[in-house]
Amino acid sequence: MATTTTLRAGEGVRKLAEGDYGKGYTELLSKLTTVGDVSEEDFRAQLHFLETERGGDYCILVVEDEGKSRIMGTGTLLVEHKFIHACGSVGHIEDIVVLPEARGQGLGHRVVAALIKEAGERGCYKVILDCAEKNVGFYEKVGMERKEVQMVKYL
Amino acid sequence: MATTTTLRAGEGVRKLAEGDYGKGYTELLSKLTTVGDVSEEDFRAQLHFLETERGGDYCILVVEDEGKSRIMGTGTLLVEHKFIHACGSVGHIEDIVVLPEARGQGLGHRVVAALIKEAGERGCYKVILDCAEKNVGFYEKVGMERKEVQMVKYL
Ligand SMILES: CC(C)(COP(=O)(O)OP(=O)(O)OC[C@H]1O[C@@H](n2cnc3c(N)ncnc32)[C@H](O)[C@@H]1OP(=O)(O)O)[C@@H](O)C(=O)NCCC(=O)NCCS
Ligand SMILES: CC(C)(COP(=O)(O)OP(=O)(O)OC[C@H]1O[C@@H](n2cnc3c(N)ncnc32)[C@H](O)[C@@H]1OP(=O)(O)O)[C@@H](O)C(=O)NCCC(=O)NCCS
Repeated sequence: MATTTTLRAGEGVRKLAEGDYGKGYTELLSKLTTVGDVSEEDFRAQLHFLETERGGDYCILVVEDEGKSRIMGTGTLLVEHKFIHACGSVGHIEDIVVLPEARGQGLGHRVVAALIKEAGERGCYKVILDCAEKNVGFYEKVGMERKEVQMVKYL
Repeated sequence: MATTTTLRAGEGVRKLAEGDYGKGYTELLSKLTTVGDVSEEDFRAQLHFLETERGGDYCILVVEDEGKSRIMGTGTLLVEHKFIHACGSVGHIEDIVVLPEARGQGLGHRVVAALIKEAGERGCYKVILDCAEKNVGFYEKVGMERKEVQMVKYL
C-alpha cells in the first residue's frame, strides 16, 4: 500500500507513560477530535488519576516510532463492571487514532488487536466500540462485527 | 396507551440499594439479557465494589412500585474520563430495562432522562449508548439522536 510515511514505527505497543506528552500524545489525539487546552500538568494529573484511582480499568496503549521520540498511534480500553453475565465485564474501546503520515502501515490494527487481547486477559465477555460508517471495514479486519446503533446527546 | 400493568409505579427514581436484590433487581435484568448465577452475596459485593472502589463513576438508578416491594425499571450511567475535550468526561448509558408488565407507562423514559441529568451534573460533554434498531424511537423521545455504528467482538 502506498504511504507518505516520514517516521518508521518501532516494534510492539506499550502503555501510555508520563513522558508521552513531550512525544506528541495530545497532538496525536487532535487528529481524532477536539483536545482543547490540556497542559503537561493536566496530562500528568489525568494519567495519574486513571492509573491510581480507577483500579486498572483504563488501559491506554501507544505505538511509537523507531527513535522513540514520537507517539504514532494510540487507543484506550475501559473495562466496565456489570451485574449481568454473572457480574461480568465489558471492554469499551475508545479514542483510536494514528498520525495521518503513519496510516496504512498496520499500526491502527496493532493497537486495536492489543486492546482486544487486554480485554480478554481482564476477563471481558465482549469488547465493543462505536465508529463512523467509513471505519467499519477497518474494525472488521480485526475480527469485529457490526451490531447495534449508537445514540448520542450533547450536553 | 393500553397496558397490562398489574403493579403501579411509585414516584421518582432512586439509586440502586443493597435491599434491591430481594425486590427482584436481577430478575428485572434477566428481561434484558443473560444474568446467570448472581447470588445475593455476589450482588452486594458488586454493588459495594462499584460504590466504594470506582469513585462515583457508576450511577445505577431504579424505579419501584408504589408499595416499594418490587423494582420495575433500571438503568446505569458509567462516566468515562478522557484526555480529549480538555480532559472531559463522557457518560455511557447501559442496561436499560423495564418489567414487561410495566412497559408503556413512561418508566423507561423517566430512568433515561434521570441518567442524562446525572451525566450533565457530573460535567459530561455528551452521553452515548448503543441500542437495537427497534429501540431508536424510544431514545429519540428522550432527545437522543442516531450517530455511529456499534461494533462488537465476543471473547
Ligand atoms: C482508522 C485508523 C485508526 C486506521 O489506522 P491505520 O494505522 O491507518 O490502519 P491499518 O494500517 O492498521 O489498517 C489495517 C487494515 O485495515 C484497512 N483499513 C484501514 N482503514 C480502513 C477503513 N477506513 N476502511 C476499511 N479498511 C480500512 C487497511 O487497508 C488494512 O488492511 P490490510 O490489512 O488488508 O492491509 C486511522 O485511519 C485514523 O487514525 N483515522 C482517523 C481517526 C479515526 O477515525 N479513528 C477511529 C475512531 S472510531
Ligand atoms: C425499551 C424499554 C426500556 C422502554 O421502556 P418503557 O417504560 O416501555 O417506555 P416508556 O413508556 O417510557 O416510553 C416512552 C416513550 O417512548 C415510546 N417507545 C417505547 N418503546 C419504543 C420503541 N421501541 N420504539 C419507539 N418508541 C418507543 C413510548 O411509546 C413512549 O412514547 P410517548 O411518550 O409518546 O407515549 C422497554 O421496552 C424494555 O425494557 N425493553 C426490553 C429491554 C430493552 O430493549 N432495553 C433497551 C436496551 S438498549
